[in-house]
Amino acid sequence: MSRSIAVVGLGAMGLPISRRLIAAQFDVRGVDPDPAAQARFAAVGGRVFPSAAEAAKGTHAVLVLVVDDRQADDVLFGAAGAAEALPPGGVVMLSLTTSPRRASEIGQRLYELGLKMVDCPVSGGVKRAENGTLSILAAAPADAMEAAQPYLQVLGQVYDLGRQHGQASAVKLINQLLCGVHIAAAAEAVALAERAGIDPRQMYEVVTASSGTSWMFADRVPRMIEDDDRTTAAIDILVKDLGLVLGLGEACTARLQLTQAALGLFREASVQGMGHRNDSSLVNLLRRGT
Amino acid sequence: MSRSIAVVGLGAMGLPISRRLIAAQFDVRGVDPDPAAQARFAAVGGRVFPSAAEAAKGTHAVLVLVVDDRQADDVLFGAAGAAEALPPGGVVMLSLTTSPRRASEIGQRLYELGLKMVDCPVSGGVKRAENGTLSILAAAPADAMEAAQPYLQVLGQVYDLGRQHGQASAVKLINQLLCGVHIAAAAEAVALAERAGIDPRQMYEVVTASSGTSWMFADRVPRMIEDDDRTTAAIDILVKDLGLVLGLGEACTARLQLTQAALGLFREASVQGMGHRNDSSLVNLLRRGT
Repeated sequence: MSRSIAVVGLGAMGLPISRRLIAAQFDVRGVDPDPAAQARFAAVGGRVFPSAAEAAKGTHAVLVLVVDDRQADDVLFGAAGAAEALPPGGVVMLSLTTSPRRASEIGQRLYELGLKMVDCPVSGGVKRAENGTLSILAAAPADAMEAAQPYLQVLGQVYDLGRQHGQASAVKLINQLLCGVHIAAAAEAVALAERAGIDPRQMYEVVTASSGTSWMFADRVPRMIEDDDRTTAAIDILVKDLGLVLGLGEACTARLQLTQAALGLFREASVQGMGHRNDSSLVNLLRRGT
Repeated sequence: MSRSIAVVGLGAMGLPISRRLIAAQFDVRGVDPDPAAQARFAAVGGRVFPSAAEAAKGTHAVLVLVVDDRQADDVLFGAAGAAEALPPGGVVMLSLTTSPRRASEIGQRLYELGLKMVDCPVSGGVKRAENGTLSILAAAPADAMEAAQPYLQVLGQVYDLGRQHGQASAVKLINQLLCGVHIAAAAEAVALAERAGIDPRQMYEVVTASSGTSWMFADRVPRMIEDDDRTTAAIDILVKDLGLVLGLGEACTARLQLTQAALGLFREASVQGMGHRNDSSLVNLLRRGT
């Protein structure tokens, strides 16, 4: 196994993930258009490259941590994309929240080029990325799973979700469905408490010890109450992800009323200019009342 | 302090709560129209009485564990109700999921009769009732809180939510909002996984270790997957409770889109004859697809 890896995308998740790989003695070759992200990456011991192709040259593995399909297409198949630079048998770890169909299409294209791919979105956020305790949702043919294992196991727990590309993306979308609905429900709960004259801190204390709690409720409600808007996950991410959930639902004729209601709220917040704010800011939309 | 208490309502919660009080050396005087509930109560050492008035006579405390407003009115103010039988200064613990307004009205009526009342819905379900680890949401004037404390502390953790009747009921309704939305979201997640060809057990394993989990998701999804319909909490309970949440929202012009979407699903299930089935059965409505 090669001890080098190209990491494409050095943002909120890419930086701590790179640090874990560097700490595990990998030669980590990073790509990001943002000079500030490049500088932070270099400061923790990464080597900066100007394009995905140059970062991937001489490695057998590329970890793709970009945020949307267009970026993924560009860094893999664009003019200076990684696919052309990888040697035959090289593995792409596609860690992207996308539709199962899209993950499957990218996988097929890479296999036609003689490469391997693992569909491997992650869950857990920045803190768990720093601690190497991410949930890594992985689906791929056996040879690709094997090739990616040494890298992925450094980042957290790897869940093997099957041999078909797209199976991991589907589970990731279902997790996002729940995250989006739970954040919107938490916002409804906080706004209702405030409007009904209930101290939201007391409500929080009771609910977190009761059957109404959720991971998102426990994590986001203190930020809603304090109106702490430091961005860790933006409203527009949920607009994108819940849209992908509805697309998956449409493809398999699933009923998704709660998802639709949550997406409606996040979209409304985005239209009102809150798209780049933290997802907990949704509460400010509801605070205004009917 | 008197060592006797009347418990009105000996059902799923009333029985284990009575056992806790009996174990704490209280003389527990029970009332329930159902002969089977009476027999179970007598078998654990309770004394059965034919009416709330007769159970309350000679005690200073009545715990009301009925399920709706009509029953509460009847057991307190009806022909053989507890209010007329309690001595001046006696305390009613109203452990009912109702609107804050209704809790406040009942409190006012009892105070006009020279009695005390604590607005004290509980959360936690049967297992935590058995273990004496319920969350007890309590709001009342100080003298009533003091009078009720010896009884309530046997049942679990008492949260003091203020001096106004209704404040505890409001927090309970907010907890129910979250429970209802989380159960409906869990049902969407399970049905979507199944229709998308994802093993729901794998989805469950990933989500419960990730940011998408909730107390209800962790508790109810195994029952959804196994289609385990033993009733612990019926769909019609959520139809009632989410209706109360919307009423509270209307009174304070709060936006409750997620709550409305969840209520719509539970109502649809109820209309289709599933009202008495366990709330996890909601997944069967969604399994049918669009």
